Amino acid sequence: MTYGWAGEVVINLILLFEKDFINGNKSVRIRGRRYRHITEVQRIAVGDELTVGLGNGPLGKARITHRSDDALEMDVHWEGDPPPAVDGIFILALPRPPVLKRVLAAVTSMGIKRIYLINTQRVEKSFWNSRALKEEAIRQQLILGLEQARDTVLPQVVLKPYFKKFVQDELPALCQGRRALAAHPGGDQPCPRSVDQPFVLAIGPEGGFIPYEISQLQLAGFSIIDAGRRILRVETAVAFLLGRLLNP
Amino acid sequence: MTYGWAGEVVINLILLFEKDFINGNKSVRIRGRRYRHITEVQRIAVGDELTVGLGNGPLGKARITHRSDDALEMDVHWEGDPPPAVDGIFILALPRPPVLKRVLAAVTSMGIKRIYLINTQRVEKSFWNSRALKEEAIRQQLILGLEQARDTVLPQVVLKPYFKKFVQDELPALCQGRRALAAHPGGDQPCPRSVDQPFVLAIGPEGGFIPYEISQLQLAGFSIIDAGRRILRVETAVAFLLGRLLNP
Repeated sequence: MTYGWAGEVVINLILLFEKDFINGNKSVRIRGRRYRHITEVQRIAVGDELTVGLGNGPLGKARITHRSDDALEMDVHWEGDPPPAVDGIFILALPRPPVLKRVLAAVTSMGIKRIYLINTQRVEKSFWNSRALKEEAIRQQLILGLEQARDTVLPQVVLKPYFKKFVQDELPALCQGRRALAAHPGGDQPCPRSVDQPFVLAIGPEGGFIPYEISQLQLAGFSIIDAGRRILRVETAVAFLLGRLLNP
Repeated sequence: MTYGWAGEVVINLILLFEKDFINGNKSVRIRGRRYRHITEVQRIAVGDELTVGLGNGPLGKARITHRSDDALEMDVHWEGDPPPAVDGIFILALPRPPVLKRVLAAVTSMGIKRIYLINTQRVEKSFWNSRALKEEAIRQQLILGLEQARDTVLPQVVLKPYFKKFVQDELPALCQGRRALAAHPGGDQPCPRSVDQPFVLAIGPEGGFIPYEISQLQLAGFSIIDAGRRILRVETAVAFLLGRLLNP
């Protein structure tokens, strides 16, 4: 696979969905964003091959058979499984919209399949009205994360706008059989390494959880961990802590 | 310390410089960005205390003694060292400007003090003319990273626009006594964990190093590592790999 470059993020896999198929399950026709990416960024032409994946399905290769002004047709064959999913649940205090977008794509690229966006005291109320929370906007970021990481399995994203209700009524069951970690500056212990059991990782908002929230998380079985003396931005903390936690 | 919130990133420390001092070394007067942050985001008033640091110096506390329409005066006392620096050199293929900004702040927040921005085949030439590379623009991102992490020591950033010259003439000396790791999808081994010796970590551009560059890095003593089967964006990879590498 060759890469072109036009100052844009390179997609490492083109994700295909059922609606893209034209002749049974062997050929697809794609337009729009993926068409422009392949022709303008990757500069791939008829006859070239590229990496594709089927949404929630296998990885494969596609050979471009036809190009028009606004569509590409490709013959597809499937040849392998996507990378293994991470058996971790990620809980994040809803960040401001541009951060949310980047974090959703980043967490998806690292293999997390269950994401909860929760409210906390220091989450700005208006964030809950953001367009970045619309189903289609969230899905777009998940797809970007999958395309980046050469994965196909869409994460599930759940919105939980009531902290107390979520933490008291749902969180204990979610944590069953999992190592539960909440990241907070000045935590009781450093983030553990290379955890070989299922986990739940919770990260607070800029400014942190408030003491009441920390005590509620502890009641739900969470250990309070940190990334050392340094306080990291949400986007940095997510990848830093997952890099430390994930095994391998 | 209390935090306000106005949808902006919270500064965890106000960084002070020699030019801010008014009465010997006990009082400062600040304006502009820091003034606005303290009054509008943190909503701190006369009499309140906040965390400060002296550029390349100690941490401390400051109590606000006077506020006018465009300036704050504070009495300062020093009370501790900044967090220990990471003994790692970070080498990054120059990314597009918005990514560069975020990565500089993030790497600084994680404690790296020596950053080399290098050219590679897949770095877009125009990136070298970006305003994000001007000294003042770089310094601004470094300060944001320090304020985020409650650190005071400004990293050194060096631009190396000639790959071959840098890798052949300078890199071997830089790597002396250090574990040298270059991250590349499909690397020979996974990124090591919790490295307890000085290191050099090199990360390529979106699209990766080309084979010639990989072989040059190997000649300079680098091991080629990866973050698993998943290909991560530069911003994610930096924090993910540092989370894995850093000890503690």
